[in-house]
Amino acid sequence: MSTPDRVSELRTQIDGINTQLLELLNKRASLASEIGKIQASLGSQIYDPVREGEMLTSLEMVNKGPFSNETIKTLFKEIFKATLALEEKQASSKMLVNRKPDQKDTAIVLQDGTQIGGGTFQVIAGACAIESYDQMDAVGELLNEFGIKIMRGMAWKPRTSPYEFQGLGEPGLKIARQVADKYGMQITCEIMDQSQIPMMSDYVDIFWVGARNMQNSFLLRALGKIPQPIILKRGFGNNIKEWLSSAEYIISGGNTNVIFMERGIRTFETETRNTLDISAVPVLKTQSHLPVIVDISHSAGRRDIAVPLARVAKASGADGMMVEVHPNPPVAMSDAKQQLYFDQFRAVMKALKNLHIDTEPETV
Amino acid sequence: MSTPDRVSELRTQIDGINTQLLELLNKRASLASEIGKIQASLGSQIYDPVREGEMLTSLEMVNKGPFSNETIKTLFKEIFKATLALEEKQASSKMLVNRKPDQKDTAIVLQDGTQIGGGTFQVIAGACAIESYDQMDAVGELLNEFGIKIMRGMAWKPRTSPYEFQGLGEPGLKIARQVADKYGMQITCEIMDQSQIPMMSDYVDIFWVGARNMQNSFLLRALGKIPQPIILKRGFGNNIKEWLSSAEYIISGGNTNVIFMERGIRTFETETRNTLDISAVPVLKTQSHLPVIVDISHSAGRRDIAVPLARVAKASGADGMMVEVHPNPPVAMSDAKQQLYFDQFRAVMKALKNLHIDTEPETV
Amino acid sequence: MSTPDRVSELRTQIDGINTQLLELLNKRASLASEIGKIQASLGSQIYDPVREGEMLTSLEMVNKGPFSNETIKTLFKEIFKATLALEEKQASSKMLVNRKPDQKDTAIVLQDGTQIGGGTFQVIAGACAIESYDQMDAVGELLNEFGIKIMRGMAWKPRTSPYEFQGLGEPGLKIARQVADKYGMQITCEIMDQSQIPMMSDYVDIFWVGARNMQNSFLLRALGKIPQPIILKRGFGNNIKEWLSSAEYIISGGNTNVIFMERGIRTFETETRNTLDISAVPVLKTQSHLPVIVDISHSAGRRDIAVPLARVAKASGADGMMVEVHPNPPVAMSDAKQQLYFDQFRAVMKALKNLHIDTEPETV
Amino acid sequence: MSTPDRVSELRTQIDGINTQLLELLNKRASLASEIGKIQASLGSQIYDPVREGEMLTSLEMVNKGPFSNETIKTLFKEIFKATLALEEKQASSKMLVNRKPDQKDTAIVLQDGTQIGGGTFQVIAGACAIESYDQMDAVGELLNEFGIKIMRGMAWKPRTSPYEFQGLGEPGLKIARQVADKYGMQITCEIMDQSQIPMMSDYVDIFWVGARNMQNSFLLRALGKIPQPIILKRGFGNNIKEWLSSAEYIISGGNTNVIFMERGIRTFETETRNTLDISAVPVLKTQSHLPVIVDISHSAGRRDIAVPLARVAKASGADGMMVEVHPNPPVAMSDAKQQLYFDQFRAVMKALKNLHIDTEPETV
Repeated sequence: MSTPDRVSELRTQIDGINTQLLELLNKRASLASEIGKIQASLGSQIYDPVREGEMLTSLEMVNKGPFSNETIKTLFKEIFKATLALEEKQASSKMLVNRKPDQKDTAIVLQDGTQIGGGTFQVIAGACAIESYDQMDAVGELLNEFGIKIMRGMAWKPRTSPYEFQGLGEPGLKIARQVADKYGMQITCEIMDQSQIPMMSDYVDIFWVGARNMQNSFLLRALGKIPQPIILKRGFGNNIKEWLSSAEYIISGGNTNVIFMERGIRTFETETRNTLDISAVPVLKTQSHLPVIVDISHSAGRRDIAVPLARVAKASGADGMMVEVHPNPPVAMSDAKQQLYFDQFRAVMKALKNLHIDTEPETV
Repeated sequence: MSTPDRVSELRTQIDGINTQLLELLNKRASLASEIGKIQASLGSQIYDPVREGEMLTSLEMVNKGPFSNETIKTLFKEIFKATLALEEKQASSKMLVNRKPDQKDTAIVLQDGTQIGGGTFQVIAGACAIESYDQMDAVGELLNEFGIKIMRGMAWKPRTSPYEFQGLGEPGLKIARQVADKYGMQITCEIMDQSQIPMMSDYVDIFWVGARNMQNSFLLRALGKIPQPIILKRGFGNNIKEWLSSAEYIISGGNTNVIFMERGIRTFETETRNTLDISAVPVLKTQSHLPVIVDISHSAGRRDIAVPLARVAKASGADGMMVEVHPNPPVAMSDAKQQLYFDQFRAVMKALKNLHIDTEPETV
Repeated sequence: MSTPDRVSELRTQIDGINTQLLELLNKRASLASEIGKIQASLGSQIYDPVREGEMLTSLEMVNKGPFSNETIKTLFKEIFKATLALEEKQASSKMLVNRKPDQKDTAIVLQDGTQIGGGTFQVIAGACAIESYDQMDAVGELLNEFGIKIMRGMAWKPRTSPYEFQGLGEPGLKIARQVADKYGMQITCEIMDQSQIPMMSDYVDIFWVGARNMQNSFLLRALGKIPQPIILKRGFGNNIKEWLSSAEYIISGGNTNVIFMERGIRTFETETRNTLDISAVPVLKTQSHLPVIVDISHSAGRRDIAVPLARVAKASGADGMMVEVHPNPPVAMSDAKQQLYFDQFRAVMKALKNLHIDTEPETV
Repeated sequence: MSTPDRVSELRTQIDGINTQLLELLNKRASLASEIGKIQASLGSQIYDPVREGEMLTSLEMVNKGPFSNETIKTLFKEIFKATLALEEKQASSKMLVNRKPDQKDTAIVLQDGTQIGGGTFQVIAGACAIESYDQMDAVGELLNEFGIKIMRGMAWKPRTSPYEFQGLGEPGLKIARQVADKYGMQITCEIMDQSQIPMMSDYVDIFWVGARNMQNSFLLRALGKIPQPIILKRGFGNNIKEWLSSAEYIISGGNTNVIFMERGIRTFETETRNTLDISAVPVLKTQSHLPVIVDISHSAGRRDIAVPLARVAKASGADGMMVEVHPNPPVAMSDAKQQLYFDQFRAVMKALKNLHIDTEPETV
């Protein structure tokens, strides 16, 4: 037989085996599915590592090659995994953070009708921390120039050192509320501990989970039980998968109003305070239906590149942008290097206005 | 004049200027120090950025070069910084985490007399999570073979996903306590939220702050008010400076019994779960007087390199080592890949015993 | 005297000292400058650590505080550094990569008049590697649809493993040249070793230094002596400062036509192949006058987010974008996961066309 | 039928299917293997993505579930991968860098009989760069005190900036050779470009590939053709897998005398210049049979923690240590902060001598 003929013949045999494997795999899945249903009705866990171990041992004992036992184990583990995934499909379809097929973007509507997600581009702005009424009022007036509806009202600052300014606390929140009411704005404030929820609920419209608490599961669970929207910042040492799971901690408790905020990750580069992971925006959009905001202040840690970063945020497909602004940045009590001067803030707002993305649908 | 002579003459002039600068700098420091004392007595902040700004502007207005205004500003900012540092010296001598000149290592003595730090090398070991009495008892018996006095008794697991095993909670702690009492051991358990302190105090000898809570300042402050020792793990995205500051949050509250635990940081390397930052041990020893423990399980995320890592931990000058061990690692409910088999654990203990560091003093 | 009066008096004294320090610093700088000129005329190095060491020792011997010797050394080292910087000003004004005050963006003009930098947004595109005439011709035809003028023509692939496809070499370049000539395009090809310069010069319009060679100083120096423009990719482990210095290696040799290409850095995030450091674009624009291109293929390592990343690249203020496209990505011999399908490429080009940035000047 | 009985019955059926799958997988592997042999004899590539694509499409067309087409594709891709791995087994057994089952550590023997690997712990030391005869002679005399046989003789320095000290070049090598001969030592020197091989071969005993050239494949291939041993430093942005592959570039050319040198990777931590990845030592030992040296100078970038890091290097199971030492570190022309004073070097050598690892075999 000629060489090409022999190859062709062998390939036909392989095709036959492929079909048999396909049938057996599906038959196996059906049987496992039935076991899964019985176990679910008994309340026992689907995943059973001991049974898996026994099956692998049996296979190793009868395996005659040419595949090594190690390869056989790897292949069967993949089959077990696929089977388990099938059984857990119902469970995983409960992963509320994930975008279902054809699911649209979720829009989160605030009490005053302001919408985050679903086609808008919201600017969240304000000073790093509440320092005084005058400071907050000056910022409020500035934001009002541009019709901004969500103002930072940070009453606690999670500082690295215990001896640095830690925020004004509840008296600060009173100031923030007063200024927000004057200009018809919503206040967002970082929560540091679940014990603060009742008090903060008197002042705050949007709760904010800081980078350092992104994996504080007790706090996340507690926030799952309140009605207010939650801004969930990414931890600077956390990957996207963990971020999605942290959102799930909140959502699985019943509060579906979660907004992601990308704020840069830690890398070796020191020109910026963190490295803004702008690719995280489209990656999140692919995986989740929830809104994403880009924080251009903490990522950069410097104010001189705010204009291009604002353009980048809008172009990335994010649902909004967060930026810090202060009447007198050099004397700010925290983050002095990154808060914008008022004129810089106006330049940023103009840059956003002057960036247009035509909305005709793309074919991808 | 010959060229070398001219250079020599210029250098003599520079030497004279150096001396004048020295005198002026010290005189300036004395004056600033006096202001600092007045401000401290008035309760006002020492650092005054507005005054600094005014001084810089004055200097810029009279500067005639050859130094540029920018250089002058840089130099005077250094002078301001040095002056501030001098004024804050008293404050900084309050930084309890820092090693004072000639300060010895701090030894933390547990209720049963077991000592962490100050020349001992303690092994902390146990299963990743409490799963059952039998599992804990098997581990306890193993640890007892080697006279180990501190056992993991983890009742809550801070998992990435809300749908993964979250720990047995208080019923688990009852088991851990029972087993610990049987073998005369101390229990360490991770605390997830400050609300757990009273209940946990009934069972737990050493509180443990996990990587995800390293910068949870409300939890740290609360732990500053209890008498039990605290193991403070390094966040996988946190640097050493932040770690020291987190310890200060605890210590400044009154609890000086803080134990650092290095557990690896996040990098691009994927052969290990994290990158063990072994240099952090001598760096911490240089800066702080507190004990340091090396976690060889979470850093590696694999059990096959436990023996060399145990040797490394001991050789680094650490005060101990933490390692996970399980009667049947493949079926463990968490961290299955990194928990040691009992035989591996015995090999690790033998390796530690067989590593000797002669203690005659070095001349550095 | 009242407390405020005393503070005011002390501050006046400090102001006086500030002025004296200023004068002495400038006088010192003038003297040092004269020494510097003498040394330069003698061809000796300006930096003289031994002399610095002697000056510091002298100062330590006469220092009476309150500044500690350590602080005095730190302050004087700053003064030495500033002085040295002044002396090296002429040298540093030779740092050709840096943007001089008010210097405009540099535009690099190719042989056919195509301009990179200075207000244009160039798309550089093509297959990861030259595989065949048909493949290159298909790509050329596609690029020609959009008037693209610069095509990838990669004849050597710097693969991780020596057993992977290493590129077609010179026969590949012949193909690339033929196709480029057919469509009136310029070819860019990565150079792996300085010995390739003469041969490559017969085919290649723009030389390309890959991430793995960004700090190959011998190659960089050699490219400083040729007339062709150089695309200098950022190493995935390199910071911006090192990147600028690598450009300086080329420019200081005489070739000022350097184009930066940002392609992502290594971080712990695994959703993308690398983390695109989009902030590097405005940072580079602040520090340098040279053009910057954003590579959206190697940074992402996946094709499904190409449209938003293309928008981000344009919005960042970059001078262009690089993207890989292949007639049949799944069978590509390298980078199969990131090369675009033709339809995706067309969607990217449409997205770029539909993003408008109004050019009225901003007030920052 | 009772529930447990039904589960038991279903499991028996699954066991039967498992066995059938096993048989089919092995039969499939045999057929594929035969095709592989034919293709190898024809010189065609084993991996055929087009054929794979066709098989997947066929399976998708007949798949009726419950497994989704996506799952089926995933499973069959695993099967294809395992099959390919089997076919490539012979090829992969050519991966000379990998440790074969039961393969012992490779010892590299220098011309004077000095052995690296295979149970010894060699100290490689010397100044960062050759600066003068006196400097090299002082270092040589120091090393000779301790019987050290391998001295740094660095004639080119790959500096970040083109305006920094670049090394003395060939005149430097003459000095290094002269000093080495005086004390009976071997010289190691970094090679920057393949064109330097002939000249360097007159002076240098061990070639050294720096971190910046770790993936310079042309240089690596060239070094594969010379007889001298090669020290291959890890790039600060490179992972272990890439490092092994770079070694393979050298070994596959015929030069099997490759020595790995771990020198730290880039992370966000700034207390040390790089983060020493000490776990890389046991990881490399698991995967490769080649010697590993730990560079405690470039990883730390500071000399005050050299003693504990030296102990760590020895305890890690490495085959040696590299450390920089200089007669007068503060005036060194490069790396001034990390080179040891002579007394520190003596302390390091004493610490190594005083660390004992009993060699009785462990049971793991």
